Amino acid sequence: PESKLPALGTTIFSRMSALAQQHNAINLSQGFPDFDGPRYLQERLAWHVSQGANQYAPMTGVAALREAIADKTAELYDYRPDADLEVTVTAGATEALYAAITALVRPGDEVICFDPSYDSYAPAVALAGGVLKRIALQPPAFRVDWAAFASLITDNTRLVIVNTPHNPSATVWRNSDYDALWQAIADRPIGVLSDEVYEHICFTEAGHASVLTHADLRLRAIAVSSFGKTFHVTGWKVGYCVAPPALSAEIRKVHQYLTFSVNTPAQLAIADMLRQQPAHYRELSAFYRERRDRLIAALANSRFRVLPCEGTYFLLLDYSAISDRDDVSFCEWLTTEVGVAAIPLSVFCDGAFPHKLIRLCFAKQPATLDAAAERLCQL
Amino acid sequence: PESKLPALGTTIFSRMSALAQQHNAINLSQGFPDFDGPRYLQERLAWHVSQGANQYAPMTGVAALREAIADKTAELYDYRPDADLEVTVTAGATEALYAAITALVRPGDEVICFDPSYDSYAPAVALAGGVLKRIALQPPAFRVDWAAFASLITDNTRLVIVNTPHNPSATVWRNSDYDALWQAIADRPIGVLSDEVYEHICFTEAGHASVLTHADLRLRAIAVSSFGKTFHVTGWKVGYCVAPPALSAEIRKVHQYLTFSVNTPAQLAIADMLRQQPAHYRELSAFYRERRDRLIAALANSRFRVLPCEGTYFLLLDYSAISDRDDVSFCEWLTTEVGVAAIPLSVFCDGAFPHKLIRLCFAKQPATLDAAAERLCQL
Ligand SMILES: CSCCC(=O)C(=O)O
Ligand SMILES: CSCCC(=O)C(=O)O
Repeated sequence: PESKLPALGTTIFSRMSALAQQHNAINLSQGFPDFDGPRYLQERLAWHVSQGANQYAPMTGVAALREAIADKTAELYDYRPDADLEVTVTAGATEALYAAITALVRPGDEVICFDPSYDSYAPAVALAGGVLKRIALQPPAFRVDWAAFASLITDNTRLVIVNTPHNPSATVWRNSDYDALWQAIADRPIGVLSDEVYEHICFTEAGHASVLTHADLRLRAIAVSSFGKTFHVTGWKVGYCVAPPALSAEIRKVHQYLTFSVNTPAQLAIADMLRQQPAHYRELSAFYRERRDRLIAALANSRFRVLPCEGTYFLLLDYSAISDRDDVSFCEWLTTEVGVAAIPLSVFCDGAFPHKLIRLCFAKQPATLDAAAERLCQL
Repeated sequence: PESKLPALGTTIFSRMSALAQQHNAINLSQGFPDFDGPRYLQERLAWHVSQGANQYAPMTGVAALREAIADKTAELYDYRPDADLEVTVTAGATEALYAAITALVRPGDEVICFDPSYDSYAPAVALAGGVLKRIALQPPAFRVDWAAFASLITDNTRLVIVNTPHNPSATVWRNSDYDALWQAIADRPIGVLSDEVYEHICFTEAGHASVLTHADLRLRAIAVSSFGKTFHVTGWKVGYCVAPPALSAEIRKVHQYLTFSVNTPAQLAIADMLRQQPAHYRELSAFYRERRDRLIAALANSRFRVLPCEGTYFLLLDYSAISDRDDVSFCEWLTTEVGVAAIPLSVFCDGAFPHKLIRLCFAKQPATLDAAAERLCQL
């Protein structure tokens, strides 16, 4: 029989990282740091392993981690989730997104997302039998046209997928966006899946706007985050979601048969990190702002046009002054000929993509950023 | 809207482990050891973490682990899978099972499994929109009636789920079972999902019969295993599947959006363990045979009837001489009043279950087994 996901090849992240390695290019494509996480975090992992914390964690996550997540949430978003009923630890944010979509979307249900959108949403919706309706946001601001949004809502709309700070556009939502979203869906049985993986990497004065700060929306929202991005350990695969008890119960029904539980010693080490070194996440925006500004400064004399970057560790560049190629072939050329790997924006969109935009990851050591910029300035 | 999995509560494993903890009972319910994995494995994990192996692993698994798995498979089953195209590392065997079912089963497709059957199969099939047809095997031998099996096959049958050594019955398949399976499905487009999580815990003279040894079946089979069971680290959540390239490609399409990748340092540590200490898995059956025999001997004077145990680290007991209760309420009573937690067999079956059987996990220290048996002998 035919594939259930016939159009799908390997994710752009795997493809570009492989191409980068093959051509020995500086890899600014897939989003991960080229420096290590905190030494303390590593030591705690080794310690918990040596203490025998190597068997199944509880299905919902170890209590120490769920409680630390509840406390962090209360500190930042003025809402304390119930650690037992509302916090679920997952195998990275990816599993949380997949489990939420699988739990809530039935065949024929409509899901709205904002393009460009992270590449795991559409396959998860397709596997659940849902119908994805994609709104194309326009660069450079990528703001939502709320009238256009309202016109997409039907009686079959079941879920809206939000993402702020937004990957790949690097823009962030204001509280007013949530107000507009609420206005549009208040009277209907529509849930909100809010991907907030970059919650601690936000450069606006107002800071990250979590769906959890919105007293109405949070009653029907699933907020997703990840420690891979926050603690520089994308390979540990520990994420979580916060959702009201009834939604959490449904998500857990899927989670328990999808992975059952998450690496136990990693969960315990992260719980220690949250408790003992909260400065790490509190200062993460400042840390990445420096990286961002360094890369922008180093590209000042290039022919790329840098787009505004309000959050995430990604920077968008417009290359229309340099090349007429489409963005996929430009990225391939950039990797193989110039020695810098980037991600084309069109892969996050459905259909025609009339822009000449690529995404660079600046979660890299200063020397890496400088070396990449030097190559890019020669174009 | 109603739940997509309305009948589902929390897995029996979470429920019994929680009840055991609450009542300070000896926990022989959920399948995990009460002793630690090899010190070498722990040291390698700490080493890889300290060396900075903390970012995303390749989506299919780290190459060192895929190659070690291919070599182990070749050593044991006379078939060398292609490490790049046929081996996929997953977040435990649970994710491999879920991804395989999701990738291969479409709405309306029929899936055959053998009851009692592991509790994640049915929800995964239900979420894929499949129709599960369950054949009830009869204790104490739990042999498949191949005529009954053949009568279940229809034009819609797409997948058969096999599990050997079998959890929870502790029986194992012979090569002749695979021959009978092949006879029944050879002419039809039916795949085989073979859960071989206990491949290294088999007490029969012939040893474990992997689907991979069957030259015809393996062309359409997915063999699933787990290092949690093999290396006494159920909390690390590293499993894998081996399947022909076309099937692996479909499974990876799901895996890449379900979890994307698996804990990097744990994968590297397990690869080292497979290379450097193969004696561990080669001697695992002997190790657990001792535990099994100790528990059986300690129960000799009890009123339980012990069923044959050919594999896994589970032992079935018939309690009909002791109580008239159904098995769920017997297990609750055993946990709260006697102080030994066990798993009722009926939760692995659909519909009426006329037997009085419970499952004990003997992956425990000798003292734990002795203490539990002492309590059980008083009934
Ligand atoms: C799961 S690999 C992709 C990492 C990431 O979030 C990104 O590059 O956008
Ligand atoms: C995923 S928890 C269950 C562990 C297990 O395999 C069992 O007890 O049967």
